[in-house]
Amino acid sequence: MPAVGKATAGNYFEDLVTGLEVEHAVPRTVTEGDQSLYIALTASRYPLHCDAEFARALGFRRETVNDLLVFHIVFGNTVPDISLNAIANLGYADVRFGCAVYPGDTLRSHTTVLGRRESRSGDTGAVWVRTVGRNQRGEEVLSFLRWVLMAKRDPGTASGADDAPETPDVVAASDLAIPPELDLTAFDPVVTGGRAWWEDYEPGERIHHVEGVAIEEAEHQMAARLYQNTARAHFNAHALAGSRFGRRVAYGGHVISVARELSFNGLENAVRVLAFNGGTHSSPTFAGDTIYAWTDVLERIDLSREDAGALRLRLVAAKNADPATEDVTLRVTGDDGRERYHPSVVLDLDYTVLMPKRR
Amino acid sequence: MPAVGKATAGNYFEDLVTGLEVEHAVPRTVTEGDQSLYIALTASRYPLHCDAEFARALGFRRETVNDLLVFHIVFGNTVPDISLNAIANLGYADVRFGCAVYPGDTLRSHTTVLGRRESRSGDTGAVWVRTVGRNQRGEEVLSFLRWVLMAKRDPGTASGADDAPETPDVVAASDLAIPPELDLTAFDPVVTGGRAWWEDYEPGERIHHVEGVAIEEAEHQMAARLYQNTARAHFNAHALAGSRFGRRVAYGGHVISVARELSFNGLENAVRVLAFNGGTHSSPTFAGDTIYAWTDVLERIDLSREDAGALRLRLVAAKNADPATEDVTLRVTGDDGRERYHPSVVLDLDYTVLMPKRR
Amino acid sequence: MPAVGKATAGNYFEDLVTGLEVEHAVPRTVTEGDQSLYIALTASRYPLHCDAEFARALGFRRETVNDLLVFHIVFGNTVPDISLNAIANLGYADVRFGCAVYPGDTLRSHTTVLGRRESRSGDTGAVWVRTVGRNQRGEEVLSFLRWVLMAKRDPGTASGADDAPETPDVVAASDLAIPPELDLTAFDPVVTGGRAWWEDYEPGERIHHVEGVAIEEAEHQMAARLYQNTARAHFNAHALAGSRFGRRVAYGGHVISVARELSFNGLENAVRVLAFNGGTHSSPTFAGDTIYAWTDVLERIDLSREDAGALRLRLVAAKNADPATEDVTLRVTGDDGRERYHPSVVLDLDYTVLMPKRR
Repeated sequence: MPAVGKATAGNYFEDLVTGLEVEHAVPRTVTEGDQSLYIALTASRYPLHCDAEFARALGFRRETVNDLLVFHIVFGNTVPDISLNAIANLGYADVRFGCAVYPGDTLRSHTTVLGRRESRSGDTGAVWVRTVGRNQRGEEVLSFLRWVLMAKRDPGTASGADDAPETPDVVAASDLAIPPELDLTAFDPVVTGGRAWWEDYEPGERIHHVEGVAIEEAEHQMAARLYQNTARAHFNAHALAGSRFGRRVAYGGHVISVARELSFNGLENAVRVLAFNGGTHSSPTFAGDTIYAWTDVLERIDLSREDAGALRLRLVAAKNADPATEDVTLRVTGDDGRERYHPSVVLDLDYTVLMPKRR
Repeated sequence: MPAVGKATAGNYFEDLVTGLEVEHAVPRTVTEGDQSLYIALTASRYPLHCDAEFARALGFRRETVNDLLVFHIVFGNTVPDISLNAIANLGYADVRFGCAVYPGDTLRSHTTVLGRRESRSGDTGAVWVRTVGRNQRGEEVLSFLRWVLMAKRDPGTASGADDAPETPDVVAASDLAIPPELDLTAFDPVVTGGRAWWEDYEPGERIHHVEGVAIEEAEHQMAARLYQNTARAHFNAHALAGSRFGRRVAYGGHVISVARELSFNGLENAVRVLAFNGGTHSSPTFAGDTIYAWTDVLERIDLSREDAGALRLRLVAAKNADPATEDVTLRVTGDDGRERYHPSVVLDLDYTVLMPKRR
Repeated sequence: MPAVGKATAGNYFEDLVTGLEVEHAVPRTVTEGDQSLYIALTASRYPLHCDAEFARALGFRRETVNDLLVFHIVFGNTVPDISLNAIANLGYADVRFGCAVYPGDTLRSHTTVLGRRESRSGDTGAVWVRTVGRNQRGEEVLSFLRWVLMAKRDPGTASGADDAPETPDVVAASDLAIPPELDLTAFDPVVTGGRAWWEDYEPGERIHHVEGVAIEEAEHQMAARLYQNTARAHFNAHALAGSRFGRRVAYGGHVISVARELSFNGLENAVRVLAFNGGTHSSPTFAGDTIYAWTDVLERIDLSREDAGALRLRLVAAKNADPATEDVTLRVTGDDGRERYHPSVVLDLDYTVLMPKRR
């Protein structure tokens, strides 16, 4: 790439040294406008985020910002510094949601490089980071681990970097944060339409979320822009014409949101996302694809509270095949005898929600 | 359809028994963000909804929520319970707009099943419902009759249902609600750009609204999602590939809105929608279609007020043909001698607006 | 065109006589929702418009409305009266940004016809206008000159009009307005991510803004509708099928915004747009086009302030060719020996920004 002058072409593997601290630019005041766009782009219906009366009945000041919108804004905020030159987003883990975010709050984020591992070939390397998002009072709203495969600026010079950290498989129950103002005593299931409580979800149970929803170029672009995510894979049709897929790829977080909001049908009472334990974006999603989703209940977690418990869930999104009526399994065995994701599966998200107990 | 677990596959004819009362889930706090999206999706320009100063001059606290946005939100709210398995939306009538809605108000809705009629074939049936939308203080913002053709869960078992109610052809003048805070004394036509008053509209007069506007998939999907309308005909490209039209159909309410906002040019002073008397969506609208609109003035209704009267109007939308320059009539006679809608006509809406009198 | 009844088919050359004053209809209360949509449609990241804390640190009450969003709303507001029948937007000049606009402010606009010049052929004519936008307190937020090529209602009758005004090439430094509340003492470049100050930009310097972003039909339509710009070239797919380009053309202002927001990468500290000196939309932008941008630094302007100076910049947008890696010059010489814009160049904007000085 030629000189771009005062513009930034993004960091490379060599720039992201272990211990580096980055205070990301462009904090973001989240507004009612962002909430409306989130609804229009994802079909969000969880009442905590669109019904001020319901939110107040649960102890909040007003409707809160959708947990995933908080995730996308904090994540998007890190892209210019961390992943503009990422070859691949390898994974994320230990994603913990903190205090409630209200319209009007301003989110800023900070990333620490935890460790790195150069690839055998020497021309790329994985980088592990921890990002923390905070509101204008410095309170933590989100914290997550993430690792990305980075291009090297100078592929010919070995760095010897090999200090990758451990990544936890699951966020421990003791690390799940519940906003102190939340009181589920007055939780009214007529508002959510949900008929099932924490006790009703059995590990091993599967819920098909019935609907399918198509994704358009304008939609995933508007979503990624709303989150100020500048990753070129979502926008630069001209440059991507010569890429592996030959076209734009929807931001993986948009697919998470679409699947999560589809899952309202069957998980109506899941009042809050507490954690992402880990996730895999097994295939890309393109404009025109129709997304379906199912949920497998993995675990019922007792939080030692009277009013609610946690559910660990696997949210699976598939494209252009209805898992409720077509033969879509999570994994398939290829001709080579190796197991891999079903080609229709685009997302495998292991996450934890807060669910009221039967009263 | 196989078991979907805890998700809801929607109600069928058998579920919607006469007398059933449904308090719909997911109340909706309407915000400034929703208003902006409504403008961006429909080209809305009526100043009452985008000019706080004008709204205050008419007695309102601030700009009010567009009447049609209120309609779409209340209507969309009923879809998961009423029309998810609807084969067709057969009609609506007696649609009355109530008190003004402000950004920040929370709308919830309630539906009563009024009656049913099983089809001769026995595999479907029509269901008549009354839906009432209210704000957080319980004040009525909207009320309407609607009838839908429903699939039966068990087509083989006759229900004998035959208690369809009467539906009025028109909302009576005495039933038209005008917000008590509204005072048109200070109505300033410079703000609207309108040059015609109630007295100037003559029954029989036609107004061509000049412009045409194309509809994109992303736009009608975002509109329907904004209204939290989950009807699969608007979203599920994959499943619809095998349907009659082979593709997604724009939400009919989006077409009403596009046509209504086109009609600003010629009806600039129509300060409020008072009622829908009835409407027919005579053909589907697809992405890529360009919508044009004309208005026929049906009736000038005296409201026994000094400041304003009502106009009963027929709003017709046509696609991909400009009625001002091409030969588009409302009705045509087919080769079979039967009269039907012109194939370009997509909407025939009989509605009533409030119009200031000449001062 | 046949009679359209009470609708307005727009003004013609004959209607826009020198000295005509037009108070445009439909004032617009700008809201948080508009700001969110602007971000989602243009990828805006300038913190003054999305970070309330940063805005307050600079002396503002809260985040301000993006300067270009103000421009688009005021400009769009004039379209129904001025340019509905424009054959071409010939140019604009002396575009001065005035006092800060906050969410909740209501903008209205007023246009004066300054002069006209009939074309030699007699069937068209250029009209020069001055538009001023004001907030609800009557304070000027924007003022600009603009000239358009208009159709004549009666091409056969000569008007003899020939009183075109002079248009300045540049807004003089003494005419650049800086909001009185703005105090850059506390300007924190960590918030913007910018590393360069006023003193660091050298005339002759070029900055390539690295990214490219594709534009979709739904996006440019939503943008133009958000600004209540009714120009049919952006919307009427049906009528445009028979036009020169055979399709919809993106609103030129949307292209300015996309390019300006791309330029954040390299101009992060450009805290405010002070003026447009002039601009040329050298080629149309269509859905599917990918926009790139570069900036040439034209001049460093001393404002006799301690905290900031102005930069005069040339912002160039190109489509479907990356100027950082492909051979895209501003101008090329054709086979006929005449110099013209490179066919990939879509925008050449000469504008002035406020930039903090190194502290």
